[in-house]
Amino acid sequence: MVEEKKNVSANGDQFSKKGAKKAAKAAKKAEQKAESAAAASAGNDGEAGDNAVDHAQGRYGLSEMIQSKDKRSERIFVTVPELVNHVDKGLVWVRGRVHTSRAKGKQCFPILRQQSSTIQCILAVNDIISKQMVKFTGNIPKESIIDIQAKPVSVPNKIESCTEQTVELCVEQVFVISQAKSQLPLQIEDASRPLNPDDAGGLNIRVNQDTRLNNRVLDLRTPANQAIFRLEAGVCRLFRDILTENGFTEIHTPKIQLPDEGGEYFFTVNYFKETAYLAVSQYIHRQMAIAADFEKVFTVGAVFRAEDSHTHRHLIEFVGLDLEMTFKYHYHEVLHTISNTLTAIFKGLRDQYSREIEAVGQQYKVEPFKFLEKPLILQFTEGIAMLREAGIETGDDEDLSLPNEKLLGRLVKAKYDTDFYILDKFPLSARPFYTMPDPDNPKYSNSFDMFMRGEEISSGAQRIHDPEYLIERAKHDAVELTKLAAYIDAFRYGCSPHAGCSIGMERVVMFYLGLNNIRKTSMFPHDPKRLMP
Amino acid sequence: MVEEKKNVSANGDQFSKKGAKKAAKAAKKAEQKAESAAAASAGNDGEAGDNAVDHAQGRYGLSEMIQSKDKRSERIFVTVPELVNHVDKGLVWVRGRVHTSRAKGKQCFPILRQQSSTIQCILAVNDIISKQMVKFTGNIPKESIIDIQAKPVSVPNKIESCTEQTVELCVEQVFVISQAKSQLPLQIEDASRPLNPDDAGGLNIRVNQDTRLNNRVLDLRTPANQAIFRLEAGVCRLFRDILTENGFTEIHTPKIQLPDEGGEYFFTVNYFKETAYLAVSQYIHRQMAIAADFEKVFTVGAVFRAEDSHTHRHLIEFVGLDLEMTFKYHYHEVLHTISNTLTAIFKGLRDQYSREIEAVGQQYKVEPFKFLEKPLILQFTEGIAMLREAGIETGDDEDLSLPNEKLLGRLVKAKYDTDFYILDKFPLSARPFYTMPDPDNPKYSNSFDMFMRGEEISSGAQRIHDPEYLIERAKHDAVELTKLAAYIDAFRYGCSPHAGCSIGMERVVMFYLGLNNIRKTSMFPHDPKRLMP
Repeated sequence: MVEEKKNVSANGDQFSKKGAKKAAKAAKKAEQKAESAAAASAGNDGEAGDNAVDHAQGRYGLSEMIQSKDKRSERIFVTVPELVNHVDKGLVWVRGRVHTSRAKGKQCFPILRQQSSTIQCILAVNDIISKQMVKFTGNIPKESIIDIQAKPVSVPNKIESCTEQTVELCVEQVFVISQAKSQLPLQIEDASRPLNPDDAGGLNIRVNQDTRLNNRVLDLRTPANQAIFRLEAGVCRLFRDILTENGFTEIHTPKIQLPDEGGEYFFTVNYFKETAYLAVSQYIHRQMAIAADFEKVFTVGAVFRAEDSHTHRHLIEFVGLDLEMTFKYHYHEVLHTISNTLTAIFKGLRDQYSREIEAVGQQYKVEPFKFLEKPLILQFTEGIAMLREAGIETGDDEDLSLPNEKLLGRLVKAKYDTDFYILDKFPLSARPFYTMPDPDNPKYSNSFDMFMRGEEISSGAQRIHDPEYLIERAKHDAVELTKLAAYIDAFRYGCSPHAGCSIGMERVVMFYLGLNNIRKTSMFPHDPKRLMP
Repeated sequence: MVEEKKNVSANGDQFSKKGAKKAAKAAKKAEQKAESAAAASAGNDGEAGDNAVDHAQGRYGLSEMIQSKDKRSERIFVTVPELVNHVDKGLVWVRGRVHTSRAKGKQCFPILRQQSSTIQCILAVNDIISKQMVKFTGNIPKESIIDIQAKPVSVPNKIESCTEQTVELCVEQVFVISQAKSQLPLQIEDASRPLNPDDAGGLNIRVNQDTRLNNRVLDLRTPANQAIFRLEAGVCRLFRDILTENGFTEIHTPKIQLPDEGGEYFFTVNYFKETAYLAVSQYIHRQMAIAADFEKVFTVGAVFRAEDSHTHRHLIEFVGLDLEMTFKYHYHEVLHTISNTLTAIFKGLRDQYSREIEAVGQQYKVEPFKFLEKPLILQFTEGIAMLREAGIETGDDEDLSLPNEKLLGRLVKAKYDTDFYILDKFPLSARPFYTMPDPDNPKYSNSFDMFMRGEEISSGAQRIHDPEYLIERAKHDAVELTKLAAYIDAFRYGCSPHAGCSIGMERVVMFYLGLNNIRKTSMFPHDPKRLMP
């Protein structure tokens, strides 16, 4: 039995020495597994004893570990979504996971999965398929990867349980390429189940967040997660493409650096015999790129915060979509570029990722994200006025608390019907020393936050480009000047006025999709309690 | 004098309290500067005393710090390369740096620079321009940023010293937006000077690397540097676009993590009360993404090496262009994808960045980068045979030393006329434990390096996707298994065979352009001796 496995022992002699022994040992193990699987299937079947003739021999079994021995370029593989074009055109090869498998007498109906696509397979005992082969296939653990050779055929009735509803595969060969453990720490089916608000204490098994994250490679296989991270790639692509079209240059800024501003959120790094810090922000080097005449720059990269926050929206490490841009006379030139870029991203997602948005929506029921053609820009004072009108007491130059931030989001949504807006002219006292004060009211500053579904996704501002004034502001905020020398010097040789912002990539995806936790939009989220995986 | 400055005092009254005082103080300083500059210019001129009538008053001076007071949207700015389309069409505004300035009697000829574009300006005393204005303009320190209003006019003779050789600007207004210190730590002209090999001990001033890096914002203003980092952005863009077109998904991998393999090159990070490490490689999470069914993934991001290397090609932090991809039966499916991606990048650079390549070539004379339509793949043993033929003694399963690597590059270039090639099947002993051994010869492995101009830019391999075999190989290499649990577990629930690689982005740019030091292709290079800027 098992044609593919036989190759191992046949060629085993070619190996030599230690490595060969290991390869041979691994092959041996695979062989043993194959035998025990076959034995198990045989044992479950009263009719087929060890000596029963198996007319399907060589058409199924455990493949040896693929070590790039052969190219097998004669095998033409077809993806699941393409199979519909191969109906009644003969045999094809498909590689996929065993999503589920249902045995029924002399038949077996595995569902094969490729990413989010599923198709039903059928094996029925006949002159090609043996009872042993049906048993063997029925016993392959879920999530194992298999190669099958099969004929795509039309089905009269829609297969509701699969994404391919009009085609099924009549299997003629099955080989296990990578066998999963039979006990899974979570079931993909459970992890994929829609969260129905009516079913809060219901009978359906839920998978809690820690179990998901502890077994992230399984959790990521759900259709919603497959969609979330494809859409996330789209956010980054759109951000870069839109800015590149607008004359921006991508740059890369160092992550290990000396501290730039006083702050408690730095991770310290042992840098040879000294201490360095992980960047909590990339503004220093972005601003240096501006002083170096790159005019409009962006960078997409890791940002670190040693913040002991255990909220739904904080990570110790996230991806910043950061930009910096010169302007002629008013930082609103930059503000409009940023808000238009975000609007263009929202449009791009809506138009190019509708399938992904739908897949996420099937698990997490949320309202579609709403935005205006022309982004709404409110003054900070207008926001405060709206809050006061709603009965909230808050000071004129006080930063927004999270509850007020969220409430304001709801008020704005009710009044303007948008999930995206910008609050401009934040209190100066709430911003770092390098923020340009408002020329008309020194209590405020030329700075802004951007909000999605009522939560902050980005902070930005005009920066002070005059070195003397920067020193003055640093002193005012009691920021240690000695460590800022290189930063301040960057402005001593002529620097255009400029503004910039940092956008939290995971937050954009989270709020665009209306998810409730940033751990859902970071592929491998790390927080103060989690560094693994 | 100075219309723009006057706005300060006129509106100064609107300010209040502390912030206002500061803004007013800053404005005051600007005013004083303007006056002293004007005084200096007046002082140098016997005819124009303090009381001389200045008929250009209000048309020149130091602008107040741009604090986004006005939008001035009536001013239409034109970029230097566009000016040729505005000849004889009246006045335009241009913002740029004072590149150089030459005064000659009653005339002054500043050269205005925008990034790498330069244009000559002319101010001659007439009914619009006063002597004082000519003096003032002539005294503006180099590298200051100025706004000018001027008429673009044709010139009869080519202006050889500028990139715009057929147009000059007849200036009518000049305002200093950001004044540079009059003493620059390096001259852009010196830093831009071509390296002529005949001039090794010559008279021309050179700027050494440390001076450049200590004053990076100035150094980056040279035409070669402006070109290098625009081309570098192109490398990243092409890498991502080509892979995205080929069905890859971009992912983001955590940089702070627990150690993955035994190795001395980890930076340690204080992670709350514990110790964590900065990623020396992203393979773990890329492989997890593969096990999670993302099939083909790439990531562009920071990679850290606590390596005390002081060579021309090592940094403690660089950008990895990393990818991971499943394959059906042979890792050459991946190898071909990678080598074709690199070839497509080389073509993209050649076709889309010819101006940048030329600009770099003007400073650093190098041979154009050569590559074959179909990338050359040599076996490691073939490479060793070529070295032996050239008289080098080296063992069969010994890794390549740097001198041998470079020599082999020259031999390959001589024989195959290519600066890019791949060496396949490296000795197993030279690769990490997770590398798949060669099925035909256990001394070797399914791994490869890629070379540009004879130096390594990328390492890649088929990874072991069988958890038991992975444990066996880890034990063989004495890698601590306890810390590998999450990594190994990733393969327990079915994983496709896969391969991947990491490409050093700065090295690709360095060798493509034929530069001699990686610090030339990292915008802010950090090494064991440099964390600033």
